[in-house]
Amino acid sequence: MDNLELIKQISITSPSKIVLLVIDGLGGLPHPKTGKTELEMANTPNLDKLAAKGICGLIDPVGPGITPGSTPGHLALFGYDPIEYNRKIGRGVVEALGIDFDLKPADIAARGNFCTIDKAGLVTDRRAGRISTEKCTELCKLLNEIKIEGVKLFVRPVREHRFAVVFRGEELSPEVSDSDPQQTGVAPKAVKALNPQADMTANIANEFIAQARAILAKHHPANMVLLRGFSRKPNLPTMGEVYKLKPAAIAAYPMYRGLAKLVGMQLLKTGPAITGEFDALKQNYADYDFFFLHIKGADSAGEDGDFDRKVKTIEEIDKALPALTGLEPDVIVVTSDHSTPALLKGHSWHPVPVLLYSKWCRADRVGEFSETACILGGLGRLSATQVMPLAMANALKLAKFGA
Amino acid sequence: MDNLELIKQISITSPSKIVLLVIDGLGGLPHPKTGKTELEMANTPNLDKLAAKGICGLIDPVGPGITPGSTPGHLALFGYDPIEYNRKIGRGVVEALGIDFDLKPADIAARGNFCTIDKAGLVTDRRAGRISTEKCTELCKLLNEIKIEGVKLFVRPVREHRFAVVFRGEELSPEVSDSDPQQTGVAPKAVKALNPQADMTANIANEFIAQARAILAKHHPANMVLLRGFSRKPNLPTMGEVYKLKPAAIAAYPMYRGLAKLVGMQLLKTGPAITGEFDALKQNYADYDFFFLHIKGADSAGEDGDFDRKVKTIEEIDKALPALTGLEPDVIVVTSDHSTPALLKGHSWHPVPVLLYSKWCRADRVGEFSETACILGGLGRLSATQVMPLAMANALKLAKFGA
Repeated sequence: MDNLELIKQISITSPSKIVLLVIDGLGGLPHPKTGKTELEMANTPNLDKLAAKGICGLIDPVGPGITPGSTPGHLALFGYDPIEYNRKIGRGVVEALGIDFDLKPADIAARGNFCTIDKAGLVTDRRAGRISTEKCTELCKLLNEIKIEGVKLFVRPVREHRFAVVFRGEELSPEVSDSDPQQTGVAPKAVKALNPQADMTANIANEFIAQARAILAKHHPANMVLLRGFSRKPNLPTMGEVYKLKPAAIAAYPMYRGLAKLVGMQLLKTGPAITGEFDALKQNYADYDFFFLHIKGADSAGEDGDFDRKVKTIEEIDKALPALTGLEPDVIVVTSDHSTPALLKGHSWHPVPVLLYSKWCRADRVGEFSETACILGGLGRLSATQVMPLAMANALKLAKFGA
Repeated sequence: MDNLELIKQISITSPSKIVLLVIDGLGGLPHPKTGKTELEMANTPNLDKLAAKGICGLIDPVGPGITPGSTPGHLALFGYDPIEYNRKIGRGVVEALGIDFDLKPADIAARGNFCTIDKAGLVTDRRAGRISTEKCTELCKLLNEIKIEGVKLFVRPVREHRFAVVFRGEELSPEVSDSDPQQTGVAPKAVKALNPQADMTANIANEFIAQARAILAKHHPANMVLLRGFSRKPNLPTMGEVYKLKPAAIAAYPMYRGLAKLVGMQLLKTGPAITGEFDALKQNYADYDFFFLHIKGADSAGEDGDFDRKVKTIEEIDKALPALTGLEPDVIVVTSDHSTPALLKGHSWHPVPVLLYSKWCRADRVGEFSETACILGGLGRLSATQVMPLAMANALKLAKFGA
């Protein structure tokens, strides 16, 4: 039985409240000079106090050794099998979510690359020399003017050479192949219908590509487009259905708002600053029983390889924490969707510290929130998908299983 | 592959002996005044000595966050997937097992409630004001006199408003619906056949209900019955088949005797006292190679919210332990089917301490049997279904897997 099915059978509604604080990219690696990770270098008296009262451990978002993208990382935290459900979310949809595009249920989204082709029409650079985001935005405006009968088109810039294209119309199908050949020295592929019902969509996609090629002819190196990951918004079970929660999301970045929306959370208005997110929590605290509070800064600093900025971001979050703990939620979980060690300048496979506090958590002896201290925590090493069942249990929102 | 299938392939018979001591409801939560759990408060020199010689850890009976009933809790300890196999054991069978009723393979058992109906026949109380067990016993005697052609009936009291009814006859089927509407303000439902082969059983059940209603008319508030969970004894693989063991159960409470019987254990005679159970172990020690020794008291004390009584029960068990260790079994496992913290007055989701001793256990540094100490144990945090394979391996009863 799917884990969500079991939880659905035993979850109950109650007035207790859960706050899931996700410090994106939290986990790190020790700096060679100090032997301490970003989290261990940071001065975090409030997190440490919470760790002392709570129970700690380490979670694997997908599995030991697997470096997760943001999508599987968050799916797991929400309790959804990250491999099974990630497969249901196409690349086009991820891209559209990432720019906060309001996808309708029948829309078909694709991920686009600006690329370079030579005179023979062969791809010489799949990323068009990584043109600037400004250039990308300018070119997307041109492509957004393309007209194709029977379909409405939306072409939106993402970053550098990346864009998203959304096809809105009747009887479109995501069952079409990529035009991106995933290699240079060959021509872009024609988009093909993977079943007869998708013929029209394939024709529309090829027509879009042909018009784009004509428009871009004078814009070398971005003189062609490659499309992949045609997909439709998946129909995931919502957190309302599974957990019987009334869930809300506080996230400044579009990608995470999109992921929260996919699992049925209400998106709350928030400013981009950390304190703004905590303010949003306070303002909406009475109206929901589950809050996903996502903070991006530590991940961005990690991606930039900026150890010190990541340390500072963590300290900033720690300083803001009393605004959360002061609300006295029944259950507080602090964790992350993956590690982003500044030394690796990117996401990594390292397990992520997790801290759970509730009146019923059976506190362990961990008195500090850090990668090293969490090794000895009472939660041990868990799959990230087990965080939500634990939070629900600690909120006394799960009935007994079996007689 | 089902875990049992793998074990079945590699299990071997040998003279070594395993004792699985289940201290029902063992796990607890720290008392606010002392910061110590029931097990941590208890003076347990013998368990601590065994922990020092053995290897410890924490087990999740069903999964992190899931509070198990006794059935899934024990299935997991016996090595059976608690979700998969719990589904095969109907509510009626659980109830019949719980009162030590000798279910035959073709019998159909149902769980019964005495309930209250008003003059219009609508249910006003699904539990008849929780009548006393004495009253229930008296009414069951009346219902036990009901005669229906072609079937033999057994009506047996359980506790308060609860009873079990067993239908014995030819060609009966468990594929019938409940009469219990699971709500008040509506009439009890007619029992319906879920397939044509079950027509006769549905008719018999409805005839039983009609006669019961006539008999109970003058016994307000217990003036009607509700039946649910019609089921037949499931055909589980036995521990003899899977582990090639000759297993015996020592349990004073009917429910646990019933569960042990379902997996093919021989039930041994025992008195209700803790020392009586250890005596039964000694008397039968030569005749079996696996003993499931179940002690109920700690769970009952936890359910009653009686922290001190739970502490005392654990101390009593510790005092009796030398009777077990003196037999020098090759493998001793001490654990539980779930936690029952006195502070929660019921089963809980918290992982359960486990201690395994054998000559080959690779002892860790844990020198005390407690929730907190077990966090640092060499077994780590395991699924309860992994206890039996570990016990079998330590008894040198599992051959190498693969070449």
